[in-house]
Amino acid sequence: MDYKAAFKNAVDQVRKEGRYRVFADLKRHRGAFPRATWTTDDGAERDVVVWCSNDYLGQGQNPVVLDAMHAAIDANGSGSGGTRNISGTTHHHVELERELADLHRKEAALLFTSGYVANEAALSTLQKILPGLITYSDSLNHASMISGIRNGGGVRHIFRHNDLEHLEELLAAAPIDAPKLVAFESVYSMDGDIADLAATAALARRYNAITYLDEVHAVGLYGERGAGVAERDGVMDQIDIIEGTLGKAFGVMGGYIAGDADMVDAIRSFASGFIFTTSLPPALTAGAVASVRWLKNHNEVRVTHQERAATLKAMMKEAGLPVMPSVSHIVPVLVGDPVHCKMVSDMLLSDHGIYVQPINYPTVPRGTERLRFTPTPFHTDDMMRDLVSALEKLWAHCNIARMGGVAA
Amino acid sequence: MDYKAAFKNAVDQVRKEGRYRVFADLKRHRGAFPRATWTTDDGAERDVVVWCSNDYLGQGQNPVVLDAMHAAIDANGSGSGGTRNISGTTHHHVELERELADLHRKEAALLFTSGYVANEAALSTLQKILPGLITYSDSLNHASMISGIRNGGGVRHIFRHNDLEHLEELLAAAPIDAPKLVAFESVYSMDGDIADLAATAALARRYNAITYLDEVHAVGLYGERGAGVAERDGVMDQIDIIEGTLGKAFGVMGGYIAGDADMVDAIRSFASGFIFTTSLPPALTAGAVASVRWLKNHNEVRVTHQERAATLKAMMKEAGLPVMPSVSHIVPVLVGDPVHCKMVSDMLLSDHGIYVQPINYPTVPRGTERLRFTPTPFHTDDMMRDLVSALEKLWAHCNIARMGGVAA
Ligand SMILES: Cc1ncc(COP(=O)(O)O)c(C=O)c1O
Ligand SMILES: Cc1ncc(COP(=O)(O)O)c(C=O)c1O
Repeated sequence: MDYKAAFKNAVDQVRKEGRYRVFADLKRHRGAFPRATWTTDDGAERDVVVWCSNDYLGQGQNPVVLDAMHAAIDANGSGSGGTRNISGTTHHHVELERELADLHRKEAALLFTSGYVANEAALSTLQKILPGLITYSDSLNHASMISGIRNGGGVRHIFRHNDLEHLEELLAAAPIDAPKLVAFESVYSMDGDIADLAATAALARRYNAITYLDEVHAVGLYGERGAGVAERDGVMDQIDIIEGTLGKAFGVMGGYIAGDADMVDAIRSFASGFIFTTSLPPALTAGAVASVRWLKNHNEVRVTHQERAATLKAMMKEAGLPVMPSVSHIVPVLVGDPVHCKMVSDMLLSDHGIYVQPINYPTVPRGTERLRFTPTPFHTDDMMRDLVSALEKLWAHCNIARMGGVAA
Repeated sequence: MDYKAAFKNAVDQVRKEGRYRVFADLKRHRGAFPRATWTTDDGAERDVVVWCSNDYLGQGQNPVVLDAMHAAIDANGSGSGGTRNISGTTHHHVELERELADLHRKEAALLFTSGYVANEAALSTLQKILPGLITYSDSLNHASMISGIRNGGGVRHIFRHNDLEHLEELLAAAPIDAPKLVAFESVYSMDGDIADLAATAALARRYNAITYLDEVHAVGLYGERGAGVAERDGVMDQIDIIEGTLGKAFGVMGGYIAGDADMVDAIRSFASGFIFTTSLPPALTAGAVASVRWLKNHNEVRVTHQERAATLKAMMKEAGLPVMPSVSHIVPVLVGDPVHCKMVSDMLLSDHGIYVQPINYPTVPRGTERLRFTPTPFHTDDMMRDLVSALEKLWAHCNIARMGGVAA
């Protein structure tokens, strides 16, 4: 067995498909977001505008968040020094879990090291706690949900994306008293469409299923206090388990679930991915507390955010660019080919100082490769004009408008 | 299906077994480690000495680390704002991966959000990259390794803890040209014993297997530059993949693997748990760079650390306490029953201001419940005398010396 050759071949295959990932080495500058410095392979530095950050509201530079982090480092030091159970529960963890439970109007919340781990741990563990659980999973659910559902080892059914008729068909086929869970997202982050939460929750209840909603791309961003689409739609109390991240709109890092106290206590007691790992550093939990609290009281940021996204979409449509039909703050533009997608992105970066990562398989299905723009409240009209004019040039130059599907 | 009752029953079962976990709410104080403030359930505050932190060297309060974190927050803000591929690779990530590769004298290193995620992602993905891979796993391997090995879905064999004859038997039974991986740890953190790395590596080579070594409880702590037991034993080049954490001796948070560039690139390209998650905040990667570098040049801290552990073990043996036969910095004392273990721990905390968490199933096998002490360079002789005298009182009071197994 030639291991070295096997590893090399695996990577060569990725290269051949044109989807080898080269990470852009970035220096973000506090106070200058979305501007950053890009270090090229040969060590040169260049100013760029970041157009693909999930720091959707720029909380990553909010002084309220940074002050809380500095203070926690000064008071408590760097790491937590342990798992949650073994000396790693700091006061900030306790506070943050209370804050998140309050945000979602639930009895309890539980922190994980990331949104990925929250999904993996919660969805796999629910299958252990509820023997015979049948999981119904939207076909476009995130990789972390898929991992959790698979790793649980129980029966799972995949329903066509946002297709409630299909979901009902599958639910109806199982015994009414079998434990069931419907796992779905609110904002699907690569397309920008939003699920019908009220209808999904109602359907689930009808078939005696509980609901698990990933609001990773919605927390901080939707609803009067930033609790997500479930808050905006007035259905928070109809969703059993809400999962979120502290790493996107909240600008820090970490993940969580919120729901009934008994459910949370059961996951806390059984989830391997929760129990056997060092807890989040106090600086992160303190920063997250500050961020969640601040966004609860600053709905105007969310209003500006939506306006910025609408403006960019309008400018792109006006220019005939194939914007995909997003109803959220996410602005995906279809390219439809991994090599072109990478090429356009490379030219935007090198020729126009515009940084947007190509989104290729396996993040999206093959044939739907795209550029995914995330305008924040800090992206100005000028930046948008620069972006659209660069795209127009490249679209003409690379002749991809036609293969890029229909402009929405 | 009564979901609420099912969740409640699951937790009641844990309570019945005496292993319901109550997290101690702690405030660590920078500069005063291992002292901390414990907030009781009724909100009162109390000073305690922490005896179970995995911040083994007190790096969590090293000014070098904290300064680096402050500086990164000032320069770059709070979170990274994206996955490694989508705008989340900061300059500090690149630097840290170089630093870790250098630490282990390997071509490359790859960061994960935690040591748990590193093990889960790497061990499951290796099975995808090397089809037909047979994994040989030590029976006491950590939960995160077990998850990764299981989730990979391939064939696995469990060999008796540190039993190389058993491992050889299992290796010999498979075709010589089948891809094989031996997964084991250096320091086993609950017993404090250390594997024979040289012999395990030699055996693996003989059967054409690669080796995967978890040095989570050894990095920073062993070897002239703190690269772990493989460095101490002079066998770093004989181990194919070394896995470590930034959350214990290095005092921050995060995990990594180090090895050949092709192997690392393959895992980077295929591991779901690496690809689909927000990357570590710049403050953590900057803090970790500083911590790793500093510990490379401060071997005297490791010397003191070993001396402190040896002193505590000697004092406990002298007092007739059932110290388990650890050959590392970990000092486990056998209790052998979950209810007693929790009771002793509770009394140490409430009556003596000594905080040590009871270690019960599933962290250790039933019947081997224990208290696990982790003396650091900051634990003084006085603190040790207080601890031993408190334990002597409780051992007499609870009548557990005799049921606690033989004193080593
Ligand atoms: C829908 C969804 N869920 C979960 C996650 C994971 O969250 P985190 O980045 O906090 O690990 C992501 C993205 O990373 C996501 O897009
Ligand atoms: C042996 C071992 N490996 C891996 C881990 C996970 O590391 P981390 O805490 O960085 O997730 C731990 C403990 O948490 C461990 O004890």
